[in-house]
Amino acid sequence: MVNNIRAVVFDRELQVTTVECPVPAPDEALIRLRLAGICNTDLELLAGYKGFSGILGHEFVGEVVQGPSDWVGQRVVGEINISCGTCDMCQRGMPTQCRNRRVLGIMDYGGAFADRFCLAVQNLVAVPESLSDEEAVFTEPLAAACQVLESAHIKPSDRVIVLGAGKLGLLVAQVVRPIGVDLSVIIRHERQSTLLDRWGIPAVRRDAVAEGVADVVIDCTGQASGFADALALVRPRGTVIAKSTYHGLPPADLTQIVVREIQVIGSRCGPFGAALRLLAQGLVDVQSLIDARYSLSEATAAFEHAARHGVLKVLLAP
Amino acid sequence: MVNNIRAVVFDRELQVTTVECPVPAPDEALIRLRLAGICNTDLELLAGYKGFSGILGHEFVGEVVQGPSDWVGQRVVGEINISCGTCDMCQRGMPTQCRNRRVLGIMDYGGAFADRFCLAVQNLVAVPESLSDEEAVFTEPLAAACQVLESAHIKPSDRVIVLGAGKLGLLVAQVVRPIGVDLSVIIRHERQSTLLDRWGIPAVRRDAVAEGVADVVIDCTGQASGFADALALVRPRGTVIAKSTYHGLPPADLTQIVVREIQVIGSRCGPFGAALRLLAQGLVDVQSLIDARYSLSEATAAFEHAARHGVLKVLLAP
Repeated sequence: MVNNIRAVVFDRELQVTTVECPVPAPDEALIRLRLAGICNTDLELLAGYKGFSGILGHEFVGEVVQGPSDWVGQRVVGEINISCGTCDMCQRGMPTQCRNRRVLGIMDYGGAFADRFCLAVQNLVAVPESLSDEEAVFTEPLAAACQVLESAHIKPSDRVIVLGAGKLGLLVAQVVRPIGVDLSVIIRHERQSTLLDRWGIPAVRRDAVAEGVADVVIDCTGQASGFADALALVRPRGTVIAKSTYHGLPPADLTQIVVREIQVIGSRCGPFGAALRLLAQGLVDVQSLIDARYSLSEATAAFEHAARHGVLKVLLAP
Repeated sequence: MVNNIRAVVFDRELQVTTVECPVPAPDEALIRLRLAGICNTDLELLAGYKGFSGILGHEFVGEVVQGPSDWVGQRVVGEINISCGTCDMCQRGMPTQCRNRRVLGIMDYGGAFADRFCLAVQNLVAVPESLSDEEAVFTEPLAAACQVLESAHIKPSDRVIVLGAGKLGLLVAQVVRPIGVDLSVIIRHERQSTLLDRWGIPAVRRDAVAEGVADVVIDCTGQASGFADALALVRPRGTVIAKSTYHGLPPADLTQIVVREIQVIGSRCGPFGAALRLLAQGLVDVQSLIDARYSLSEATAAFEHAARHGVLKVLLAP
């Protein structure tokens, strides 16, 4: 029985503190962290997004140490939206859009960057034995990448541009590629080009891309300017899939959306089952995205590393 | 044979001038104006939209007086996008999005607010005898209203809000109603309520509407603020159809689009055939939208009238 644990807490500033081990509610499990990942959303929370304070962290793989007996001892990942099951969105089969949702490490729910943390049992997903922790920790962001295909019908004959080759863009590109689309990823760093070359995906610079001809543009830049770029690149009646969340309200050329009859689709959290299948079948390379590993105690340094330009996934281990 | 004609010209200021009668190109017809309508886009052009200068006007009904013999003498309305027929968008069956298009009275093509004007023969559509000029002059804006149903799949079970009860909003509401949807129109003026009551459509004030529950919100406000309102009113994973064009770049809460996974669809010019069928079958009341009639010579006063708050359709006759 553990009494005190380390936790990565943001409350105007980021620090690693010692807190009491949380006690799971009857519908929750207590999870021992095995490995966690730092996401761009974590960096946005530090910048003021959603006015968050509390324990950070929503990308994890862990082991259930307390809760329903059929779960105890299991290695798990977890859906991050804790849904009520009774609102109209839940009833319509859209629990990630639950009206009363709390979100692990993002909204009204303590996060996973801690030695122990709680999560609703309904959110647990068992990890196949064949997957390593370093693969499984990518389940949540890979599910978010898969959501692109839930949000829009992307066809094999489509010309698709992924805008932004950060952590999310490189997952989205790998998810979209097997459809057979004519795919390009717009990059800013030479290193991204090396990764994409390895996967057989053309990497191009923004100024080398013809404007107004892509059927689908997926904005993974994480920057307000990405949306304007996406509008410029998409063809009339084409589709822009918006994946980036950020703090602030950028100006958007809405008249262009109307005149060129563009479709803009917001896309957020995705299907864990699909992500685990892709990982288990070796269809997505996540190992190449890992840039650094830190211990929980070194979380401040880990966040500084993750915020550096061009850095991909930074992991936190107990 | 007419040598000099009156034309409504905008060149930094609006005036009615005498110009030479245009000579149709081999692929064009010369049309004698019977009746024309002032659209919000005309008012936006005066405000600087697209940096337009030239003869205004794109809503018209007229009679062909010169051109192919099978057209001469016919009463016609006309598609406003003059397309090339050879670009990728034309080849894909989307001529209103032609890469090389000119647009009657809006872009690189003299408009219909004149005693005589030219239009590409391929754009002519014959008007059924049963329709009056005052009905037929609404074909173009009614087609634009029908485009809402081309742009998105609106289902009978949907809760639909039309934002803005101006000229376009009142046509859109009438086009959407027969699908059987749970429809509300957000109004600002009591007079709009009277019109909507007559059609059996609930008119509501903005502050009386629950936010975040509409399946579909159609923004017909013609104002930048309309888009933010539409985002507030639509449910998670709902659809916002953007119909308004205006001069300027409003801030847009793109993060809300992503987090709530909203779909935004731009919608512009629409199918003339459908509009003429709706008019011929008496399914849309356009007569009630007519607020004033002016002669071409009085166009300046007509524009002033059309720009007044709450005014609906102002017509121009020779």
